[in-house]
Amino acid sequence: LGCLRELRLLKMAKNTNIRISLPAVCFVWQIAMIILFGVFIRYDEESDTHWIEHRRKKNISTNLENDFYYRYPSFQDVHVMIFVGFGFLMTFLKRYSFGGVGFNFLIAAFGIQWALLMQGWFHHLDENDWKIKIGVENLINADFCVASCLIAYGACLGKVSPVQLMVLTLFGVTLFAVEEYIILELLHAKDAGGSMVIHTFGAYYGLTISWVLYRPLLSQSRHLQGSVYHSDVFAMIGTLFLWMYWPSFNSAIADHGDGQHRAVINTYLALASSVLTTFAISSISQNNGKLDMVHIQNATLAGGVAMGTASEFMITPYGSLIVGFCSGIVSTFGYLFLTPFMEKTLKIQDTCGIHNLHAMPGVIGGIVGAITAASASESVYGQEGLINTFDFKDAVANRTVNIQGGYQAAGLFVAIAFGLVGGALVGGILKLPIWGDPADANCFDDDVYWEVVVFFK
Amino acid sequence: LGCLRELRLLKMAKNTNIRISLPAVCFVWQIAMIILFGVFIRYDEESDTHWIEHRRKKNISTNLENDFYYRYPSFQDVHVMIFVGFGFLMTFLKRYSFGGVGFNFLIAAFGIQWALLMQGWFHHLDENDWKIKIGVENLINADFCVASCLIAYGACLGKVSPVQLMVLTLFGVTLFAVEEYIILELLHAKDAGGSMVIHTFGAYYGLTISWVLYRPLLSQSRHLQGSVYHSDVFAMIGTLFLWMYWPSFNSAIADHGDGQHRAVINTYLALASSVLTTFAISSISQNNGKLDMVHIQNATLAGGVAMGTASEFMITPYGSLIVGFCSGIVSTFGYLFLTPFMEKTLKIQDTCGIHNLHAMPGVIGGIVGAITAASASESVYGQEGLINTFDFKDAVANRTVNIQGGYQAAGLFVAIAFGLVGGALVGGILKLPIWGDPADANCFDDDVYWEVVVFFK
Amino acid sequence: LGCLRELRLLKMAKNTNIRISLPAVCFVWQIAMIILFGVFIRYDEESDTHWIEHRRKKNISTNLENDFYYRYPSFQDVHVMIFVGFGFLMTFLKRYSFGGVGFNFLIAAFGIQWALLMQGWFHHLDENDWKIKIGVENLINADFCVASCLIAYGACLGKVSPVQLMVLTLFGVTLFAVEEYIILELLHAKDAGGSMVIHTFGAYYGLTISWVLYRPLLSQSRHLQGSVYHSDVFAMIGTLFLWMYWPSFNSAIADHGDGQHRAVINTYLALASSVLTTFAISSISQNNGKLDMVHIQNATLAGGVAMGTASEFMITPYGSLIVGFCSGIVSTFGYLFLTPFMEKTLKIQDTCGIHNLHAMPGVIGGIVGAITAASASESVYGQEGLINTFDFKDAVANRTVNIQGGYQAAGLFVAIAFGLVGGALVGGILKLPIWGDPADANCFDDDVYWEVVVFFK
Repeated sequence: LGCLRELRLLKMAKNTNIRISLPAVCFVWQIAMIILFGVFIRYDEESDTHWIEHRRKKNISTNLENDFYYRYPSFQDVHVMIFVGFGFLMTFLKRYSFGGVGFNFLIAAFGIQWALLMQGWFHHLDENDWKIKIGVENLINADFCVASCLIAYGACLGKVSPVQLMVLTLFGVTLFAVEEYIILELLHAKDAGGSMVIHTFGAYYGLTISWVLYRPLLSQSRHLQGSVYHSDVFAMIGTLFLWMYWPSFNSAIADHGDGQHRAVINTYLALASSVLTTFAISSISQNNGKLDMVHIQNATLAGGVAMGTASEFMITPYGSLIVGFCSGIVSTFGYLFLTPFMEKTLKIQDTCGIHNLHAMPGVIGGIVGAITAASASESVYGQEGLINTFDFKDAVANRTVNIQGGYQAAGLFVAIAFGLVGGALVGGILKLPIWGDPADANCFDDDVYWEVVVFFK
Repeated sequence: LGCLRELRLLKMAKNTNIRISLPAVCFVWQIAMIILFGVFIRYDEESDTHWIEHRRKKNISTNLENDFYYRYPSFQDVHVMIFVGFGFLMTFLKRYSFGGVGFNFLIAAFGIQWALLMQGWFHHLDENDWKIKIGVENLINADFCVASCLIAYGACLGKVSPVQLMVLTLFGVTLFAVEEYIILELLHAKDAGGSMVIHTFGAYYGLTISWVLYRPLLSQSRHLQGSVYHSDVFAMIGTLFLWMYWPSFNSAIADHGDGQHRAVINTYLALASSVLTTFAISSISQNNGKLDMVHIQNATLAGGVAMGTASEFMITPYGSLIVGFCSGIVSTFGYLFLTPFMEKTLKIQDTCGIHNLHAMPGVIGGIVGAITAASASESVYGQEGLINTFDFKDAVANRTVNIQGGYQAAGLFVAIAFGLVGGALVGGILKLPIWGDPADANCFDDDVYWEVVVFFK
Repeated sequence: LGCLRELRLLKMAKNTNIRISLPAVCFVWQIAMIILFGVFIRYDEESDTHWIEHRRKKNISTNLENDFYYRYPSFQDVHVMIFVGFGFLMTFLKRYSFGGVGFNFLIAAFGIQWALLMQGWFHHLDENDWKIKIGVENLINADFCVASCLIAYGACLGKVSPVQLMVLTLFGVTLFAVEEYIILELLHAKDAGGSMVIHTFGAYYGLTISWVLYRPLLSQSRHLQGSVYHSDVFAMIGTLFLWMYWPSFNSAIADHGDGQHRAVINTYLALASSVLTTFAISSISQNNGKLDMVHIQNATLAGGVAMGTASEFMITPYGSLIVGFCSGIVSTFGYLFLTPFMEKTLKIQDTCGIHNLHAMPGVIGGIVGAITAASASESVYGQEGLINTFDFKDAVANRTVNIQGGYQAAGLFVAIAFGLVGGALVGGILKLPIWGDPADANCFDDDVYWEVVVFFK
């Protein structure tokens, strides 16, 4: 029966009926999650009722070592960014707001489960019992991991089915866990806010998928690709929650102590700076100086992306302002010139302009991180400060800052490579005519996957 | 004069003029609050300027015992759920968004004051001076208490006047404080996230009121009972803030230390799991697999409700996923089949479907809690861990886990009983023709209680 | 060329082309920020990599002294109020939502940078190396400072160009830093939540500017001065985030320990109380008791404003309720009677009614603060508590509470004076015909400064 069905699907291209495939994917994968969690996932020491005995044994006199508010407020801020921030940022299309916020919700809810497993296997597998012990910090990392898939979704917004998005997320999280392991563990590069690991990888992953899935006749649904007045205001909810909580994003897993403080200050300043340059470029690009909501919704965030790697470093407050200054300009120019160019010449259709908001600022962030690391000195950081900031311990105890800079740059290339190769592979899979994606004339339309009462004439 | 007026009101049924009654209720009750607060409410030790002397006397060397951030971030998350979460979840109706978010605001603002008093009398009355000493934890509990009334409002949304809602809240908070006292203090049941105390009670309270206030001709305003495109997006703001902050809700008053960590992890996982099953059932229920926004807005939250009681327990991460899996399915099926059935056969009109989102998952939560408690063992919890988790101290020092399970189940019945009996009584009061509720043909219409410029044709 | 252009601008009054001026202001000022930050701003001790050495030197055994979560959660709450709270509160106009939330974003992003410098010069200049050392607390103060400019924007909403707003912010932040220095440092008045320093100053600053910029023919754009249904719901997002996080606002820089706890409780109660009186007055003022969204969006917040100064004091819980009770009434009456009166008679056009939400409750807050301070006693506060609460140390070690009350009152007058004189000066500057402000017939219209697709018929 399944075979017959598949044949029928192959014949009638662009059957968007997902009544079997979406429930099947959701059920089967969720059941797989339950089984894998049953086999592998346990509470970590701080979340286990044995904590009280463990604490006494280890002579931890106060309760501080298990302080709930050690990372939890940061976790909640990041959580809001993932679900409300990314979700509402993608409500800007006039008839795809349900899909923007709804599918964002679906893939993030699946992705965080799969990320707990994948990141657990690579980073937190207890060698004694082969279990993954999870705590609040794992939840933050799972949210981080999912962010890369949501970025990739931005390139495909309105052109793929929810089943395709589930596949995109399954492979995206898998690839993320591997490249994260290579960059952070093997190369020992630093990337607290994920300029490379999250933004660069996620953006190139999404752009390559979008390139493979190129739709030559997408102009048939061009009338739906714009916004309406209130959908633009909805998108501003996403923008602002991303913007406000970005200091928490970049500092959430930074070193407790001075590192976390510094990450907040640097990110706060870079973001403020990129707001001003975004307004400037947006205004100067129009005949009468009128501002474009697309720029304000997106390019204002470029400073946060570009500050992802170096936020922990002693980049200085004015250095942060300069990074925000440049990335705001680059990002807005991207929306003005690069997006149309990429669509026409490179055949990359990038609905949300993630190349401008994540790819370019992410690469800037990686480069800034490499340069800042390579130019770090004991006179600025202090002897111990230098060791602390770059974790020059154990296997890398003798690494110099110049070599660290080289490894940072290597990390950036790994992120790009994983994005490009992974995106090409996954794009190929998603090109199979079995996923229920819409025809070119039906893109950007909630009516395909949602019960939409006829609100519109 | 007041007597004449009342007569006139009794004659002309469905006079929705609340120009006297609403201001009167607001003023008189607020003045009553001021007087009662003057008599009963004082700052607790940590909020009093004498703290510094007290600290020295008790030899508390550091400031930690009065750490502001001990519970405050959790309080703020819960606060957002009450006002933005519940408020925006109820904006989904096409012409009742003002009433949804506005009356939610009114009754929560009144309810938290009354809850501080009622909960104070039952739980925190200082026997030396007969004062209630309040601190941040009392504010969290007041928010919790109000949540049950907001759930009840969900069943009545669009069909009652703000004066009726104030009465519903006055009695709802009173009933809540009593049943909470019975369940948590007398039965010594555990219910950190309130599956029983908040959700089950609140839902049956609201459903019974809605049953008493049954409107046979409600179909006359059926044209207003749906949503429009952007009102559904507004409702997603409520959904997401509830979803994201639910781990804070279930852990806000959990045991500091491992209990709070565990509550977060369990709730996070249950919620993620119920998102996937909600999407699955929603899609499978339609001919072409199209998703229904009503399901996504509501049933995705069922995992959080169902994890309210057991969140503190060692239910294991995969156990949490299973709870979320089942409650997402049950809740979505409720929207598909039970809500229409209840309206036709049981004469219960449940505007927001709180039976599906709060009643059923709440009962599931209570049952899961009872089973998990009854099957707790020293091998899993550790000797001290078991005592800590269930507070087997003082009067209940010798209670076994089996007996605890029985008391948990008893707590569930108390919550249901209070909801049903309390709802019947309050429903009877609200049936009096003096409260300015709208006619059947005027339900779900902001125009009745709000100055609405003629936006609509 | 620039000269010719300026001449042309002077000739054609009401040229709203800001294609040169807005980018110029953004670029030049942002570059100035970078230079000034390079010269003056450095990380403070806790944010510097030398922290670890410093800690050892000072024998700080634990990491607590540099606890990241000491102030950070409060910072994030305040940050949300500034960008989402104020931003969305100003989206209520039917065709000026972009301008409301967008320009709020622009001026806040610029203002926080300039505030870090101005407040740094006045409060945190290190006399050894003439540098300003910034940390998380400085970020909170910068957000506070910007709030006063956003309040002032409320009076001018829809009637000024973004260039004018940048000028308003440049001078507003400057004036703020000076009056804050006078009130808090020289007069040694207490004002944790800024009833005087932020709200009173900001409101009179904005009102005076609006008075200088009086537009006699503003009625020409009256058709755009109202709201539409969904723009009112958007504004409720702003209202609720302001309302919910106001306890964090008033406690963010309060004394750690009991002061912060007390500030939260007092603000929470005052806000709850003003919700009820706002609903009461709003309902009683209409023939059929219908509520007005303008009142609910604004006057419900009056309790938070009025509790800004006294929130740290032992005003008692019922005292807080009384303050909220009165300020809710005063504020709603303001919207009903004062705003029309001021527009007709005093020629002050106050778009958002900041006189009702910030000026009057701010003055109430200042007076309540002065009275509460003057009536403080050792019997209520305790000997040490009194010294702690009012910081009776060093130069003011011998100040009595009566004298403190007098200085509090003096602080209120300083705030009003700075608002009036500063507003007159800045209003005069903004009256120059070079800023690209709209004609009277083009006010409240996003089409002037934004690319708005023709959504509207």
